[in-house]
Amino acid sequence: MLTKSLSVILSSKQCYSGVSGKIRAQKYVLTKYFQGEPKKSDFKVVEEDLRDLKDGEFLAEAEYLSVDPYMRAYMIGYKLPTDMIGGQVAKIIVSRNEKYPVGKYVTASFGWRTHTICNPAKYNKVASLLPLTLLPNIDPLPVSLALGVLGMPGNTAYFGLKEICQPTPGETIVITGAAGAVGSHVGQIGKILGCHVVGFAGTDEKCEYLQKEVGFDRAYNYKTANIKAALREGAPNRVDCYFDNVGGEISSTIINYMNKYGRIAVCGSISSYNDSTLPKATLLQPAIVLKELKMEGFLVNRWMDRWDEGINANLKWLNEGKLKYQEKVYKGFENMVEALVGILKGENTGKAIVKV
Amino acid sequence: MLTKSLSVILSSKQCYSGVSGKIRAQKYVLTKYFQGEPKKSDFKVVEEDLRDLKDGEFLAEAEYLSVDPYMRAYMIGYKLPTDMIGGQVAKIIVSRNEKYPVGKYVTASFGWRTHTICNPAKYNKVASLLPLTLLPNIDPLPVSLALGVLGMPGNTAYFGLKEICQPTPGETIVITGAAGAVGSHVGQIGKILGCHVVGFAGTDEKCEYLQKEVGFDRAYNYKTANIKAALREGAPNRVDCYFDNVGGEISSTIINYMNKYGRIAVCGSISSYNDSTLPKATLLQPAIVLKELKMEGFLVNRWMDRWDEGINANLKWLNEGKLKYQEKVYKGFENMVEALVGILKGENTGKAIVKV
Repeated sequence: MLTKSLSVILSSKQCYSGVSGKIRAQKYVLTKYFQGEPKKSDFKVVEEDLRDLKDGEFLAEAEYLSVDPYMRAYMIGYKLPTDMIGGQVAKIIVSRNEKYPVGKYVTASFGWRTHTICNPAKYNKVASLLPLTLLPNIDPLPVSLALGVLGMPGNTAYFGLKEICQPTPGETIVITGAAGAVGSHVGQIGKILGCHVVGFAGTDEKCEYLQKEVGFDRAYNYKTANIKAALREGAPNRVDCYFDNVGGEISSTIINYMNKYGRIAVCGSISSYNDSTLPKATLLQPAIVLKELKMEGFLVNRWMDRWDEGINANLKWLNEGKLKYQEKVYKGFENMVEALVGILKGENTGKAIVKV
Repeated sequence: MLTKSLSVILSSKQCYSGVSGKIRAQKYVLTKYFQGEPKKSDFKVVEEDLRDLKDGEFLAEAEYLSVDPYMRAYMIGYKLPTDMIGGQVAKIIVSRNEKYPVGKYVTASFGWRTHTICNPAKYNKVASLLPLTLLPNIDPLPVSLALGVLGMPGNTAYFGLKEICQPTPGETIVITGAAGAVGSHVGQIGKILGCHVVGFAGTDEKCEYLQKEVGFDRAYNYKTANIKAALREGAPNRVDCYFDNVGGEISSTIINYMNKYGRIAVCGSISSYNDSTLPKATLLQPAIVLKELKMEGFLVNRWMDRWDEGINANLKWLNEGKLKYQEKVYKGFENMVEALVGILKGENTGKAIVKV
């Protein structure tokens, strides 16, 4: 018996929850638009009894929830109150769909919630940032990687770099937000492709990690370095590809240091996500004209139909030892907001996730 | 007998001048980098006796010289003193090349000079902004059009819009610098392609000209209009293609008003050409990511190998009455600098040229 009709996840009317035996789900509902840094009081946590499964459905229990910078930027597009968006790795605990058996793991854009009833046939690929994916066996790797190097950030790095930047061997790639999940991955693909890779990150420890463990040619602390001097030193042949995770003035400086026909993949603009009005930065157009630069923004779900290609390439590199990763694990469903604030502040090196 | 070896034109070592019978050539040599507005004192005018022609060469006398906004931006890349760059329409007055007979007209990047000796086999297509072109008979159209609708600005509009913006029928195109040689031409191609065309220009008279004579759907005076309000009114379906001639804050406003997968052709940045340090403008990256915009700068010589395609398309539209043009003619070789300053101030509607 239904007690309550829930608002849809990612506003795509595909997976419903409700009464289901004795299991109670918890979820975050955004009730106030973020102002500056996200706050706990912007949300309320709602409990629901889940309904029984219908044919074709399964019930999944979240094990890891993802926190990503895009979450700060996107919520502005939703009517409030709305369920909070986000990817998760969940274990199937009840199933009436033989293709999704109990015990298997899935990743999907279920949002910030502990339990989800899903009908795969109704999962909306177009509206969701993350496809519904049944995890292959990646033992002994942890399933949480499906939110990182083997998930959305991994594919963001893979497709963003290969399709938008199109680097060729010997070219110089510069990456901002370089120690984050996407940035550190982009740099490693850059090295695999035979490029010279320079990163900017927010602490000396992150820079040391990028240079010593991840294999970046150079990494600079953008908070203390002179960006122009760093570029002259670290990118003596100037910049062919710029993977922009941050926006802001540092991006203007880098773009003004690019070579003819340089390519800029605009993946994020974390430097301005907490601002209520957009800040200003040095004009890009003169460099864009004179050097005939190409700058393109992208969301990774553009390559939804090639999703497995990215996952498989990253898995292969991982198994070959060519791809290193780091996870910053926050603990507890009650700490989702702290985790989100943490990544917006740059607390994380590598992928930030929350163990439910 | 050579009296003097000249520095090369457009630094491409292709066309030399020197002693030639009794003809004296005049040319502008840039001796100081522009600071703010170009000044007469940034140049010196040099006279030279021309040498005799060698086999394969011709001597051409300039009839019309072009002044274009790019001239303000480019000279920073040359070592001084250097011959001033620029396109011209010139009449062949002496020839030792049967393919270039006396009486015919050519267009080429000969710079700001009255007479030029040229060997077509040595004319450097790559280094020059304008290919060396023997004008077909365009009677009764004036030969000066070879610097405008049938020349570099015409091809800039043709290739920039078609190749970078790739508009489809029904889409909305916004153009800044809309009353200039390139802008007014872009808008007309937009209408020919079945698009909704909105322009921004710097005087009410220019806007009236664009709406009443040129066929723009709407044109706004950017100096007096509220840009956001103008966009809401003139581009109710928002913006799919933006042809950016100006850079600056107006471009940020337009780019933030674009539709998903919008395309931006960055053709110029005239708003900042006279500034010694680059100004700031509202950050573009958030819109570029969220709407997955593509922004590309271009120089028209990228399509040098397709030059005739653009010229022929524009000539056909001109003959069909689909393409209107206006020329602002300055008079006298001694007034080149005034003409250049004039276009940077926005004095011109349509193409600005100097009658030698």
